[in-house]
Amino acid sequence: MSMNRKRESTGFLIKQRAFLKLYILTSIEKERWYGMQLLEELKTAFKPFGYEPQHSEIYRALHDLLEDGILTRHKIVEEGAKYKEVVVYSIKDKETAKAYKKLVKADLDRGEQLLRKALQDNFS
Amino acid sequence: MSMNRKRESTGFLIKQRAFLKLYILTSIEKERWYGMQLLEELKTAFKPFGYEPQHSEIYRALHDLLEDGILTRHKIVEEGAKYKEVVVYSIKDKETAKAYKKLVKADLDRGEQLLRKALQDNFS
Repeated sequence: MSMNRKRESTGFLIKQRAFLKLYILTSIEKERWYGMQLLEELKTAFKPFGYEPQHSEIYRALHDLLEDGILTRHKIVEEGAKYKEVVVYSIKDKETAKAYKKLVKADLDRGEQLLRKALQDNFS
Repeated sequence: MSMNRKRESTGFLIKQRAFLKLYILTSIEKERWYGMQLLEELKTAFKPFGYEPQHSEIYRALHDLLEDGILTRHKIVEEGAKYKEVVVYSIKDKETAKAYKKLVKADLDRGEQLLRKALQDNFS
């Protein structure tokens, strides 16, 4: 998977891309997902942590998930006075999604330990 | 400081460069520091975490600290049978070093919180 190819060089902290892919997957697992609605949610959620994910980065994460064959997308017609098509995303392969999340979890755990070690080694 | 200019774009996790600069500073604070001895120490320390800092990245971190005016270096003559010069590094400006470490600590704390949040949001 693309996350791993990119990370093999040094194995430092998790990449932003993988971090966002994880959030997108979890969000889509919970309910059918309309394009970029997640963006504002994520921006609000991460603001207290000084992190503001950019539109372009979220689009790239979404694109990766489609390319990896984890997500699929289709158009639906929205109810309303006017005819309007919207793109929705859903999990294409639950097993692959689960395996990917497992990898990311290991990377998050590892990162948390690495940061805790750095705090301990340098500030105690 | 260079760390901050680089991080302003998204504010995601701490950069590897800042992480290594922190370890170099702490190491030099503890004792006079001979070039690259730290490299093997760091490699050993981080191995259980799957992270292997590269020579080039540590050199760049060291170069940054010299450029920032936090470190200074000088040559000394090593005792021994043969005449041999070695380069040693020391803290040039203790206040700046302290201020830099404080910034990095805030970034490590923030990163730890961000990772913990991601674990909670996606795996509980």
